[in-house]
Amino acid sequence: MTKVDVQKRILDENDRLALENRRAFAEAGVLVLNLISSPGSGKTTLLESTLERLPENVRVLVIEGDVSTERDLDRVKARGAHGVQINTGGGCHLSAKMVAEAVSGLDIESADLIFIENVGNLICPSTYDLGEDAKVVLLATTEGDDKPMKYPAIFHEATLAVLNKIDLLPHVTYDVAKVEREIEVLNPDCEVLRLSALGGDGMDGWLDWIAARLEEKRRK
Amino acid sequence: MTKVDVQKRILDENDRLALENRRAFAEAGVLVLNLISSPGSGKTTLLESTLERLPENVRVLVIEGDVSTERDLDRVKARGAHGVQINTGGGCHLSAKMVAEAVSGLDIESADLIFIENVGNLICPSTYDLGEDAKVVLLATTEGDDKPMKYPAIFHEATLAVLNKIDLLPHVTYDVAKVEREIEVLNPDCEVLRLSALGGDGMDGWLDWIAARLEEKRRK
Repeated sequence: MTKVDVQKRILDENDRLALENRRAFAEAGVLVLNLISSPGSGKTTLLESTLERLPENVRVLVIEGDVSTERDLDRVKARGAHGVQINTGGGCHLSAKMVAEAVSGLDIESADLIFIENVGNLICPSTYDLGEDAKVVLLATTEGDDKPMKYPAIFHEATLAVLNKIDLLPHVTYDVAKVEREIEVLNPDCEVLRLSALGGDGMDGWLDWIAARLEEKRRK
Repeated sequence: MTKVDVQKRILDENDRLALENRRAFAEAGVLVLNLISSPGSGKTTLLESTLERLPENVRVLVIEGDVSTERDLDRVKARGAHGVQINTGGGCHLSAKMVAEAVSGLDIESADLIFIENVGNLICPSTYDLGEDAKVVLLATTEGDDKPMKYPAIFHEATLAVLNKIDLLPHVTYDVAKVEREIEVLNPDCEVLRLSALGGDGMDGWLDWIAARLEEKRRK
């Protein structure tokens, strides 16, 4: 069996398990968002800021993916969220199987919204369906404005792109319009939101986007 | 054959080819540095800044690794460097085989120094020996100060860690000493340099480090 065969079998098996996850999430009526970015783009800070601002009646669970440490889970727990940490022990992405095992220990029936924070990696997580409703990709204004075309796969897959750290725009060279144009070329259906998870600017747009997705879910 | 068997066979084959690369580099008397970081930590900017500052008698080649586009190669070529682009087409790291193929088109005998800029990814490239003399890991002060313990493998492997974007320290919350302590715990032999590739602060230390490695190489 070649490397390609093995890779295809792994992805086929992942797709099968992702479908099972998707069915379980649909039965529970829970919205699931898969957050993907490089290390340090601000996934955990966005979660912290979101947990502080979400209406109280939205019941949230967080699945934290990381190579090592429970630091991110500690941070969202400090904001009152329930959740679970997946440590991949070197693995560069979450898989549908890891998520299924994590979910088995959570009461998803009582939740409205599950955030999955993927392992910090702009490449590998884009290939692995976890059964989520939407992939949300984060970029930071401190990372340079050439990233979409250099890492196209995740932009093909994402429903929403969040341009984070706009509070630092005065201190860096970053052409926001160029980044938005590149995303538009790669995936015209991918929405883009500009925000600062730390400072709070633009968080309203993100909360409105979540509210609209929750409303869609309720109507189904 | 299981996924683990296949993974082991791929790594064994990579190690064999890396050894061949290492022999070829040693015969040519060329120093090879493998730059590894997340997307946007400043690998290409560090190369640009280095190419502008290196003594004229140091003959440099650059091997640029990327998922897609030749943007990074265009940038270093604009600084007068000769080099070659490897596009992995989705692959999340360079391999010894890719480097061997890239090197076959380059006149390494006439070079003193080869920079390999790996694919932007803090996880996968750490496992793949390319035949380099040293792995250099970059972190940026805009990425949060919790990264070494969250991505330990590359710090175990690296000879040098570069903390880039120190010019942005006044605008972010980043505990440099904490990062240096974490690297020390993971790998006491890993040197740490603070610099701003864009602004130039600390570049002297990096150039001195390269000069010392070139001198070691000449003595061998």
